[in-house]
Amino acid sequence: MKTKILLKESEMPTHWYNVMADMPTPPTPPLGPDGQPVGPEALSAIFPDELIKQEMSTERWIPIPEEVRDILRLWRPSPLYRAHRLEQALKTPAKIYYKNEAVSPAGSHKPNTAVAQAYYNKEAGIKRLTTETGAGQWGCSLALAGQMFGLEVRVFMVGISYDQKPYRRSMMKTWGADVFSSPTDMTNSGRSILEKDPDSPGSLGIAISEAVEEAAGREDTNYALGSVLNHVLLHQTIIGEEAKKQLEIVGDYPDVVFAPCGGGSNFGGIAFPFFADKASGKNVRLVAVEPTSCPTLTKGVYAYDFGDAIGLTPLLKMYTLGHDFVPPGIHAGGLRYHGDSALVSQLHYEGLLDAMAVPQLETFEAGVLFARTEGIVPAPESTHAVAAAIREAKLCAETGEPKTLLFNLSGHGHFDMSSYDRYFAGELEDYDYPEDAIRQSLENLPKLKFDLE
Amino acid sequence: MKTKILLKESEMPTHWYNVMADMPTPPTPPLGPDGQPVGPEALSAIFPDELIKQEMSTERWIPIPEEVRDILRLWRPSPLYRAHRLEQALKTPAKIYYKNEAVSPAGSHKPNTAVAQAYYNKEAGIKRLTTETGAGQWGCSLALAGQMFGLEVRVFMVGISYDQKPYRRSMMKTWGADVFSSPTDMTNSGRSILEKDPDSPGSLGIAISEAVEEAAGREDTNYALGSVLNHVLLHQTIIGEEAKKQLEIVGDYPDVVFAPCGGGSNFGGIAFPFFADKASGKNVRLVAVEPTSCPTLTKGVYAYDFGDAIGLTPLLKMYTLGHDFVPPGIHAGGLRYHGDSALVSQLHYEGLLDAMAVPQLETFEAGVLFARTEGIVPAPESTHAVAAAIREAKLCAETGEPKTLLFNLSGHGHFDMSSYDRYFAGELEDYDYPEDAIRQSLENLPKLKFDLE
Repeated sequence: MKTKILLKESEMPTHWYNVMADMPTPPTPPLGPDGQPVGPEALSAIFPDELIKQEMSTERWIPIPEEVRDILRLWRPSPLYRAHRLEQALKTPAKIYYKNEAVSPAGSHKPNTAVAQAYYNKEAGIKRLTTETGAGQWGCSLALAGQMFGLEVRVFMVGISYDQKPYRRSMMKTWGADVFSSPTDMTNSGRSILEKDPDSPGSLGIAISEAVEEAAGREDTNYALGSVLNHVLLHQTIIGEEAKKQLEIVGDYPDVVFAPCGGGSNFGGIAFPFFADKASGKNVRLVAVEPTSCPTLTKGVYAYDFGDAIGLTPLLKMYTLGHDFVPPGIHAGGLRYHGDSALVSQLHYEGLLDAMAVPQLETFEAGVLFARTEGIVPAPESTHAVAAAIREAKLCAETGEPKTLLFNLSGHGHFDMSSYDRYFAGELEDYDYPEDAIRQSLENLPKLKFDLE
Repeated sequence: MKTKILLKESEMPTHWYNVMADMPTPPTPPLGPDGQPVGPEALSAIFPDELIKQEMSTERWIPIPEEVRDILRLWRPSPLYRAHRLEQALKTPAKIYYKNEAVSPAGSHKPNTAVAQAYYNKEAGIKRLTTETGAGQWGCSLALAGQMFGLEVRVFMVGISYDQKPYRRSMMKTWGADVFSSPTDMTNSGRSILEKDPDSPGSLGIAISEAVEEAAGREDTNYALGSVLNHVLLHQTIIGEEAKKQLEIVGDYPDVVFAPCGGGSNFGGIAFPFFADKASGKNVRLVAVEPTSCPTLTKGVYAYDFGDAIGLTPLLKMYTLGHDFVPPGIHAGGLRYHGDSALVSQLHYEGLLDAMAVPQLETFEAGVLFARTEGIVPAPESTHAVAAAIREAKLCAETGEPKTLLFNLSGHGHFDMSSYDRYFAGELEDYDYPEDAIRQSLENLPKLKFDLE
């Protein structure tokens, strides 16, 4: 009874799949504050040309540079698992497969894009990368990737996480990155916050501002983002491409694909390569799973909004809860983003992708069942996909349908054990749908003439 | 340039290799306090018959039950890596390979034996397993294994670790185990300690006593040990067997094999299958790597001594620093054992295995270089093998010899990041060889008539 389906290194994909080639309508452009599309030149202060090209490209296949593949080989191709023991526990006729992205050194799917971004920046002559990080998943991934290409990496880590979650911070240092507790006194953004509140605990919005400010102000320095943008989702499609090949080996094809959805790179990474088939008529459901407490795709509006909390970025057309919406403090920190990838949003708006929301307690229950059957302790973000797959498998047990399910196990929970502790202690709760907060925040959406038509 | 050498699940070994079949002199028996060999019946209060048989067997190949292989398949066969990037950093002509045992759900090689022990206990009708754990590597592994076979697992965790290292405790709970801060008031051993010192921080010796007492006192309960014993080393030989097959695929064979050595299961696991070749005349060096602060094989004496700190276990003939030797508080907690496996000790005594000791700072320096080249952050125990391989590779760079080196990367350091923090902060030190403490502790060795001949 085969458990893992492995690919040889020689079978690792040579190209990324660009979903923009198969979208029924052209992707919406990012807009400046004047409501005009933002051109490539506006982005070149903080991104290298190759990534800006990828951000706009409609080529279906984009080659993965050999230097990137060399590093990805440290953990890729990642294994696809058949979850025999989970199936048995659920007494389901469904076949459950999961792609295990927790095998990367940083413990999640994030290095897939970090390595590519570091490479293109290195090639462009950049010496330093800046970024922000909350709990540290993304900061770790960029630290690792920067180290591999000899780039200096400077991470602005949300102050309260810097103090309370020291171990991912230690990993970043082990990989040679400089990590700063944000707000710092090294940037105007940081200083302006500290002037008002010397004890500011920081926020992702502030950390982004600091990282972007530093990158924009130095010729040798660029900025790197871990999700949301088109090129980030592009780099993650290696996940779904591998999964397709692996399922082919065992003669299977998914009826449903589930992935957690925060900024969208986790979901787009596994789902887009299957979307290519769907676009040519194949019957496959692609389901983005989000927390009920931050229900962007399921309760948000599809509109132009800022990508960051403060309003410094270009406007993206996306499902949003409003850029100043602050979601409840759930433990899946990676799923607390107010918006979503423009590509995921557009395809969802056009009815081509599904979305569902799962409450926090159900996700932890699913995570514990998964750990007790399959061994791996999943990250709180990943438990959202586990929970969704379990719901579907239970439905199959009722109907007798032997569906084939696939989900993305995007990361392990080794640095999230305090969340499991709180779950076992009965200290976690299901937040109500934060209706009032969302309504209020949506009122603050930027009013754009062309968007109101 | 191939990075990982993978085996198919169908190529996973079907038998464990028993080094006792190839030892030039018969293994020394464990002795009771009366100096007489301990028979199987004395062990049956806490171990199932199959494991006692394996403890004594001289059969060369012992079949791995299909039920055990089914669970091992969740992460095995583990990948063998060619450390291209480490080689480049060292500018060495040596080829460096490492076996990555960090891929198990518990993050180390320990589940290889935990799964087997849980299986044999389950087959023997046992309902509960007890064990002790320090930092939690072994407790996690047994919790995982017990969960897989529906056995209750009760872990006595050293009190100070229970408080200071909560995250492996959380993992044990996630896998369904009951974890107690030792000393507890549930056993005579625990109560006797608490009477004297209500604030006792606990010790591994006390935790062993509690776990053994509970197992001995209940018909449905057995005890499980994570290293030292012959059957434990037997179950780990799957590591070396796989590594041999993987090296064959690339047409290589090691000149030197390195592994960390605490109780010996990590080292025996990778080295013994190569010892089989050495016994038939092949030229291969097998090197056990220990900390200079707990230099059992390099500075201890070969004599009968107790396996535990208190003196409750049978006497084992082994290299020992004296059972009441307390090593300095180095961060490689798994390498602080006063003694060593009887099998490893005997083969070392007979000049068939090599041993070396490495100071703490050199191991962390090696761990950081490894993380920055190969990506994976190694456990402090594993960094000992990394450091030894780096020393040899540097020697090769001087002499120009293109040696083939193999080491066991026994685990990741995700739960040891505070140790890396202290290293970066310059707070770690190299302990001097604790000569006086060892001399004094060796004076307390049990005086056995037959041992003095």
